[in-house]
Amino acid sequence: MTSTIDPKSIGKPVRPRRHVRTLTGYTPEKDASGRDKWPRGEEKVWKESMRTLDKDVNDVTKSMVTHVQTSLARQPYNIDNLGAYQAAAHSARDNLLINWNDTQMTYTRKAPKRAYYLSLEFLMGRTLDNALLNLGLKDQYKDGVKKLGFSIEDILDQERDAALGNGGLGRLAACYLDSSASQELPVWGYGLRYKYGIFQQLISPAGDQLEAPDPWLDNQNPWELPRLDVTYEVRFYGHADRLDDGTGRAIWQGGQEVLAQAYDVMIPGYGTQTTNNLRLWESKPKRGFDLNSFNAGNYEGAVESSNSAAAITSVLYPNDHTNFTVGKELRLKQQYFWTAASLADILRRFKNLGKPMNELPDYVAIQLNDTHPTLAIPELMRILIDEEDLRWDHAWSIVTNVFFYTNHTVLPEALEKWPVPMIEHVLPRHMQIIYDIRTTDDAISLADSSFKKKYPGDRDRLARMSLIEEGMPKQVRMAHLAVIGSRKVNGVAELHSDLVRTTILKDFVDFEGVSKFGNVTNGITPRRWLDQCNPELSALISKTLKLDKSVWLKDLFKLEGLLPFAEDAAFRKEWAAIKQRNKERLANYVQTTLGLTIRTDAMFDVQIKRIHEYKRQTLNILGVIHRYFTLKNMSAVERKKVNPRVVFFAGKAAPAYFIAKLTIRLIVNVARVINADPDTKDYLQLYFLPDYSVSLAEVLIPASDISQHISTAGTEASGTSNMKFCLNGGLLLGTVDGANIEIAEEVGESNVFFFGHLTPAVEDLRYQHLYHPVPIEQKCPALAHVINQVSAGVFGDGGVYEPLLNTIRQSDYYLLTDDFDSYIAALAMVDEAYLDKDEWVKKSIRTTAKMGKFSSDRAIVEYAESYWNIEPVTIQKS
Amino acid sequence: MTSTIDPKSIGKPVRPRRHVRTLTGYTPEKDASGRDKWPRGEEKVWKESMRTLDKDVNDVTKSMVTHVQTSLARQPYNIDNLGAYQAAAHSARDNLLINWNDTQMTYTRKAPKRAYYLSLEFLMGRTLDNALLNLGLKDQYKDGVKKLGFSIEDILDQERDAALGNGGLGRLAACYLDSSASQELPVWGYGLRYKYGIFQQLISPAGDQLEAPDPWLDNQNPWELPRLDVTYEVRFYGHADRLDDGTGRAIWQGGQEVLAQAYDVMIPGYGTQTTNNLRLWESKPKRGFDLNSFNAGNYEGAVESSNSAAAITSVLYPNDHTNFTVGKELRLKQQYFWTAASLADILRRFKNLGKPMNELPDYVAIQLNDTHPTLAIPELMRILIDEEDLRWDHAWSIVTNVFFYTNHTVLPEALEKWPVPMIEHVLPRHMQIIYDIRTTDDAISLADSSFKKKYPGDRDRLARMSLIEEGMPKQVRMAHLAVIGSRKVNGVAELHSDLVRTTILKDFVDFEGVSKFGNVTNGITPRRWLDQCNPELSALISKTLKLDKSVWLKDLFKLEGLLPFAEDAAFRKEWAAIKQRNKERLANYVQTTLGLTIRTDAMFDVQIKRIHEYKRQTLNILGVIHRYFTLKNMSAVERKKVNPRVVFFAGKAAPAYFIAKLTIRLIVNVARVINADPDTKDYLQLYFLPDYSVSLAEVLIPASDISQHISTAGTEASGTSNMKFCLNGGLLLGTVDGANIEIAEEVGESNVFFFGHLTPAVEDLRYQHLYHPVPIEQKCPALAHVINQVSAGVFGDGGVYEPLLNTIRQSDYYLLTDDFDSYIAALAMVDEAYLDKDEWVKKSIRTTAKMGKFSSDRAIVEYAESYWNIEPVTIQKS
Ligand SMILES: Cc1ncc(COP(=O)(O)O)c(C=O)c1O
Ligand SMILES: Cc1ncc(COP(=O)(O)O)c(C=O)c1O
Repeated sequence: MTSTIDPKSIGKPVRPRRHVRTLTGYTPEKDASGRDKWPRGEEKVWKESMRTLDKDVNDVTKSMVTHVQTSLARQPYNIDNLGAYQAAAHSARDNLLINWNDTQMTYTRKAPKRAYYLSLEFLMGRTLDNALLNLGLKDQYKDGVKKLGFSIEDILDQERDAALGNGGLGRLAACYLDSSASQELPVWGYGLRYKYGIFQQLISPAGDQLEAPDPWLDNQNPWELPRLDVTYEVRFYGHADRLDDGTGRAIWQGGQEVLAQAYDVMIPGYGTQTTNNLRLWESKPKRGFDLNSFNAGNYEGAVESSNSAAAITSVLYPNDHTNFTVGKELRLKQQYFWTAASLADILRRFKNLGKPMNELPDYVAIQLNDTHPTLAIPELMRILIDEEDLRWDHAWSIVTNVFFYTNHTVLPEALEKWPVPMIEHVLPRHMQIIYDIRTTDDAISLADSSFKKKYPGDRDRLARMSLIEEGMPKQVRMAHLAVIGSRKVNGVAELHSDLVRTTILKDFVDFEGVSKFGNVTNGITPRRWLDQCNPELSALISKTLKLDKSVWLKDLFKLEGLLPFAEDAAFRKEWAAIKQRNKERLANYVQTTLGLTIRTDAMFDVQIKRIHEYKRQTLNILGVIHRYFTLKNMSAVERKKVNPRVVFFAGKAAPAYFIAKLTIRLIVNVARVINADPDTKDYLQLYFLPDYSVSLAEVLIPASDISQHISTAGTEASGTSNMKFCLNGGLLLGTVDGANIEIAEEVGESNVFFFGHLTPAVEDLRYQHLYHPVPIEQKCPALAHVINQVSAGVFGDGGVYEPLLNTIRQSDYYLLTDDFDSYIAALAMVDEAYLDKDEWVKKSIRTTAKMGKFSSDRAIVEYAESYWNIEPVTIQKS
Repeated sequence: MTSTIDPKSIGKPVRPRRHVRTLTGYTPEKDASGRDKWPRGEEKVWKESMRTLDKDVNDVTKSMVTHVQTSLARQPYNIDNLGAYQAAAHSARDNLLINWNDTQMTYTRKAPKRAYYLSLEFLMGRTLDNALLNLGLKDQYKDGVKKLGFSIEDILDQERDAALGNGGLGRLAACYLDSSASQELPVWGYGLRYKYGIFQQLISPAGDQLEAPDPWLDNQNPWELPRLDVTYEVRFYGHADRLDDGTGRAIWQGGQEVLAQAYDVMIPGYGTQTTNNLRLWESKPKRGFDLNSFNAGNYEGAVESSNSAAAITSVLYPNDHTNFTVGKELRLKQQYFWTAASLADILRRFKNLGKPMNELPDYVAIQLNDTHPTLAIPELMRILIDEEDLRWDHAWSIVTNVFFYTNHTVLPEALEKWPVPMIEHVLPRHMQIIYDIRTTDDAISLADSSFKKKYPGDRDRLARMSLIEEGMPKQVRMAHLAVIGSRKVNGVAELHSDLVRTTILKDFVDFEGVSKFGNVTNGITPRRWLDQCNPELSALISKTLKLDKSVWLKDLFKLEGLLPFAEDAAFRKEWAAIKQRNKERLANYVQTTLGLTIRTDAMFDVQIKRIHEYKRQTLNILGVIHRYFTLKNMSAVERKKVNPRVVFFAGKAAPAYFIAKLTIRLIVNVARVINADPDTKDYLQLYFLPDYSVSLAEVLIPASDISQHISTAGTEASGTSNMKFCLNGGLLLGTVDGANIEIAEEVGESNVFFFGHLTPAVEDLRYQHLYHPVPIEQKCPALAHVINQVSAGVFGDGGVYEPLLNTIRQSDYYLLTDDFDSYIAALAMVDEAYLDKDEWVKKSIRTTAKMGKFSSDRAIVEYAESYWNIEPVTIQKS
């Protein structure tokens, strides 16, 4: 029942933000004697009724069966694998919650400085196996599940991936959360709870990628904790009026208001009690009071407007290379919605401490994962100035000590920009603030004597550095905003960080000093990417190192202890046998899911990652075709000497990325021809596995002999799947790019296969392509032949592929014509090396042994120490 | 991971329907010795791990605290009333599930004939209190909750109504489910799980109704059991091609396919173990394979199309008087979606029995609540003919023995019709079948010698009876389809059933014989509408009758035992005191929720129901104005003799129903004037309580001295709130309409206040209004005065009300001018009667005492015995 309301009051800003009570981090009151006061009811009754952590198999079955009856509302008579998975998931969730509650309580009581990781993507994959591992209850669940008539493998296999990310950036965020918890660091993630994760990829018989929405929440999600009472209002549109009081303050009102509601995902640490939090926001209509909901008595309009609020977190945007030029308003709303809700939540928590605002940087570090959350900078300014009544300079000094920015790309077309008119429309107050930042900053730059001294009258430099790019329309350069608003900036691999400093942010390095611009090479969590996905290898390592896995999984440099065993033939045999079984596991998986039979006695050659021109899947498939023709030209006897190879591709193309989709089509059609050719099919097979995902990666990676990371030099910031393959003893075939370089530094150049031009050469080569083009027939006859055959229709209608082939024939921006020959040569070296199985296995062991550096534990500790300045917190049991 | 798919295969019909396994009603296999085989794992482990029913306070606190920790993911430090409600709800749900599982298992093992109640609306209200009552655990929860530091009243008050209905029809369905379970009858309900229930009503200061969506699921809904694996595919659009084999069969393919997913709501019986099921369908996109999802690589289009699938069950349509003329396609899709999923589910269950199709009527009765589910008739024909390969006549004889149809209205504008072109487009196969039914049926009618003999050449009659109404466009008359496709038809009160037989279905009665057309007077559940909403009265009754409430709540005629006590002064005092406390409870409620102070020493006069011209809230408000002017004209001394009155209105107007909304505006503005007038405010107060709901009714009804049910004679089918008021000792002021008549028959005319013209007079009066109009000043000067004052602006801008006033001044379809004087006279009689408090309380007691007939238990047993032919089933404990 509701009283009368005044529609005129709708759309007015409310200060302070509404938050009824906090679900997390409530501190108990003390009584006179300093003892905690019991908050409510009879302490004894509460305490005796509390659930504790499960310990043995009995606890596990009891908990699972109760969930079958209650949470699932089923009976033993009708429980299948999916049901058993759900029961196990609910039961594991109950256990995680005990630790989660203790962790949050400890943080609140101790009030350490915390870090917040803002990422638009978290590519978590499956949860149950990791939860059981980190709880230390894997065996108990295995046995319990068996007593109930199921197998743990079947059950784990029921889980659907949480695929709230496009690729590397999102998976990196997931690994970092795992490492934060494992390192007992007080880190929370903030992201969006998309209704549809990354699209489901299907392949039509013609070889075209089809995209279907991924309604991952359909099966219910036991891993999220809906926080009905953690909600914030977020405003869009309306108008912002500056006050005339000289403070720079403004009032922003009207427009659309939507509600952000929190969902929490528990992030358990390995070998610790720490269970951190990932908070995801869902957009909802503001019940009953959203201006648009009233639409002058238009009830259908009101329902539509409710749906439009919900649309904000409806879909994860595929990482389209043209995304930012198209500039979708809904995507801008998504970014603001997320940063506004996250900041409101962070500030509420900080304010509970009762500290003055200028101490914010002592308690809060906010990491911006790429530029997507850059609006947090003007948003914090808005809050400090308009809501907290701080002066501009004061506010700016707080802001610039809170934020940290990680750059993930130097590709110009991937640098985020938003049209000024769009921001003006959607976020009028933020556009004012961005202009104010520019004026202030540019003014400082221009007026400041140091700038003047340094660059007298250098207006070009100022235009280059400005937050606003001139043009029609003007655009806001998000990377520039992120740089000037942050305390530190980093790239994600040595080469990449160098490129950041010397290319796109050169002027800022000049002006602000190089110490602001660092590097943290990416890492991966060895729990998921070795122990979980390759349990046999993990067991062998523990046995060999004579260390419990809990030791080396937390100190990955311990793997170096494997080095001497490379010379141990018995060990090599075990090592190779495990690789073989992983290949068979993959073959079995492909058999049961795709119905295809793969031979497992060949070399497995894998390239799995988003389909993108810079990642050069095209180079790979053209190389496969080249190999095919070479085989065709051989006599039967010659062929017998050839190293048989199975080539795997997997990856999604952005739905609007025409060239990438053509690449997929080419791969699928080449596969059709090759796999059916009796002359060659014993020596070369080719598969495109649809719907690449974390779970698919977990099956593919341990099975790989060689994997390809062949981006044009200088284009791949780091890559992380390269680390995953190497950690699992797969060798690397790659360009001198991203983290490939550091991997080679660690494992030694003799253990990797490098090819192609180096970064410094790239610019010149591109220049030549444009101004002194050499016909491809002349420059690279092998490649020309391949291209001509494709064009001629050997793999189906050649006309279809013309636009793809033209990218090579014409400007060849990604240097395929320059690198093809050395690529083919490198492939030959791989073949040769593989023939010496013993030596190969040694390389494989040495590779794994030297991957210590690439643990995300190392990376996260670097962030904690050199960037965020936070410390580990030991969790107190309640 | 998904294999390649052939988009050409998309949209092809699949036979039989996909249903992986059944969650409910799985029968165990027997071993050689005839003992049940344990289905899976170790029987001992399962059984020892099973949860049992909670018995004592300890069980309750343990269960609640565990839910606080796990389901809510909270701690004792941050649990509020809402959290405590959720914990209690989860715990009650766990208990209900034990009985639910046993009930479904018993049904499956015994395989009785079942009835299915198809209703587009189920207005359930709140669940927790009813669940605890029916579980017999109310005291244990009260104590447990207290030990945890809460009060049960506060907790119950946190629950949000499930408002999946507009009014009487939906609430009737809810009462019938309660009675079915209480009578141990094997009845399931089938409905839709709307994302938004009936809109939330807010009142602007100007007095306008504003509508906001009601996202009732936002707070999570512990009462529903999502059935992830109970899904059916439902097709729309596409094309239907008849086969040339003379069978009448057709293949329907293409178009849009959506998924129906089941959510189950447990319906516990009072004083029985029976816990029946209400299955609600939600629409979802067909993952990855809906033709529209592919939209030629248009990913955004695919996401949109997913959302369009979800839109089908997005919103409960307000019961607009113009609904059917506007003919919304989405509403038609809603109806088909629901009937198709429900039938598929019913048939799957039947087929599990292994019986031949012609035995369907021995195992299944389907009740059509109003014409909304009438598409079930051609849908069952379609399944039997196209999927089960039955011959037409055979199929038709099955169909016409399965369905039963309840008519709920004789108002011509409310009779459902759908344009033929729309059905042709959305459901091409069903339009064919409807034509086939017509041809067959009309052919029979025309050719059949009995028809010919009876009505030689009577083409007019045929046109009247036809399924298709001629016109532009042609329309399908759903009521006719429902009649000819059903075994029996009934109205919902004696008068109404008579009108059905003599007016709208007269020709069918003539042709098919009167025995097909019966009456079942509506009923209400005394558990909710007396014991729960008026616990003090319930206790007094038990004490007085010296019967445990479990006896008289299941045999409501026992209330007659109160009659002698009407003469007992001490009892009357207790009776009156309870009414007084209920008035204070209402006053307190209005105070805390609306901030308005209501005097409780006056008579409480209540009219609460949907705002509709035929229900004549206008008559009431004009009467209030009349009373106001009368008071104004009195001297202060005269006024002192007047019976003080507080008049309450509540009710929603359909958003597009302009006249009804004007009535609300008038009420609110009259209230503003009257309540502020120092001359009269001690004698007359007026309140419009916004957002009428079941929960509000539960507070209002026990507090009423007199309630108004004043529809134009012949327009209200039954009414059920009239029964609720009377059951709680409120007297009835009404017209000779609907169930008012039967209430008067029971309690005696001396205990009700009747007024107004009778049904047989209505037609003549309307004729006179049109052809011999008498000016209102002449016909009814009192009313004319009131109208003129409104028009003159006494209650704000008079011009606003002109359209409303004109409905009276002009055709006056609802006979306000004819009934006003007798209405005023009746009000005066009520005043007079109220002055004799002793006599009034006697009337009140006698009224309650004679309400036995109106228990929905009586009604549901009539349906079970005289319509569905089903029997009670005793539940076996597992
Ligand atoms: C599903 C998925 N996508 C993308 C990536 C990142 O791959 P890369 O580093 O090769 O770009 C990974 C890393 O394993 C992954 O699991
Ligand atoms: C919320 C609600 N709406 C409508 C009705 C039906 O009222 P009536 O029978 O007066 O039309 C009821 C019955 O109590 C109700 O609770």
